[in-house]
Amino acid sequence: MSSRLQPAFARKTPPGDTHERDICENCGFVNYENPKIVTGSVVRHEGRILMCRRAIEPRRGYWTIPAGYLELHETPEDGARREAREEACADLRLDGLLAVYTVPRLSQVQLIYRAGLIHPHFAAGEESLEVALFDWDAIPRDEIAFPTVHWALEHERMVELGEAAGPFVNPPNRSPDPQR
Amino acid sequence: MSSRLQPAFARKTPPGDTHERDICENCGFVNYENPKIVTGSVVRHEGRILMCRRAIEPRRGYWTIPAGYLELHETPEDGARREAREEACADLRLDGLLAVYTVPRLSQVQLIYRAGLIHPHFAAGEESLEVALFDWDAIPRDEIAFPTVHWALEHERMVELGEAAGPFVNPPNRSPDPQR
Repeated sequence: MSSRLQPAFARKTPPGDTHERDICENCGFVNYENPKIVTGSVVRHEGRILMCRRAIEPRRGYWTIPAGYLELHETPEDGARREAREEACADLRLDGLLAVYTVPRLSQVQLIYRAGLIHPHFAAGEESLEVALFDWDAIPRDEIAFPTVHWALEHERMVELGEAAGPFVNPPNRSPDPQR
Repeated sequence: MSSRLQPAFARKTPPGDTHERDICENCGFVNYENPKIVTGSVVRHEGRILMCRRAIEPRRGYWTIPAGYLELHETPEDGARREAREEACADLRLDGLLAVYTVPRLSQVQLIYRAGLIHPHFAAGEESLEVALFDWDAIPRDEIAFPTVHWALEHERMVELGEAAGPFVNPPNRSPDPQR
C-alpha cells in the first residue's frame, strides 16, 4: 500500500443527495456511513445464563452477552452463532428472536436471540477475560456492560416466566445509553 | 475536491481483523462495509393500504410500501416516518413493530412498522410515480416490487384478522430474493 497520502475527509453533500457525507479530498471517495447491526443472544444452559467478561473497550472488565457486528451477507442468526463461537467458544442452538433494541446515539440496531448451548463446552475467546454460567440471582448486575444487556436479561426472564412473548423493543422511558 | 486521484480499492485483511476489507491503495482508508438497515411501514387508512409505485430502479414501475435506508443517529421509527414523507408526502402515526426481515444477498435487515395516516393527505414524492390507497382485494399483487413487501402485507393482514400478533420474521421456506 502506498503511504504517499492519508485519507482527508471533508463533510459535503454529494450531488442529488439529501445528507452531508464524508468525501475524501484526495480521491473523491464518498464514505456512505450506515447504522450498524449488532446481533447477539441470551444463552441458557440448565437454567443458568452464559455471560462474557469483556477483554476489550468499551467497558473492559464488565459482563455482557455474546454479541457483535453483523458482517456483510451474513444472516443475523449466523452472526449470533459466530459471535458466541468467537467470544465464548460456544456452539448455539437458536430459539427465535427475543428483542430488537435501538441505540440512536451509536446508530445501532441490536437483534437479540434466545439460545441454548448445543453441548456444555465454553471458554473465553480472544475478546473475553472469562466466560461463566450464572444463576439468575447470581448475575453480577452492578457490573453489566450496557443497558441493553440488562434489558435482554429482563426480557428473557419475562419469557421464561410466561409473562410476555416478545419479540420486545426498547422498554419505555429508559435510556439505551450508560448513565454517567 | 481534488481530481488528481480516484479511489483505488484492493481487498486486503487489515492487521488484527478477521475479514478482508476494501483498502484504498492511494490513501490507506479502510472501508468497513456493514449490512444496511431498511425501515418502512405498512400504512392503513380507513381499511385500505397505502402503496407507492416506484419511480427509481430497482423495480421501477412496481408497487411497494414506504421504506428506505435508515440514516445515522436516526431511530428506525423516525426513519419510517421520514421515508413516508419523502415517498408519499404522508405523515404517519406508528403502531408498533410488525416484522424484522433479513435479505442476506443484499446484506439487509428490514424493520417494518404498522402505521396509519395522521391526516388523509398523500401524494407522489420524488421517488414515486404515484401513490394510492388500495382495498385488500385490489392490491396489484402481480406488480409488487419485492418479496418482503408481499410478506409485510400478509403479516399485516394476519394481525388485522387476529390470527397472529407479531413481530414476524422471514416466513419459512420462502426466499427474500425475487424469482427470475
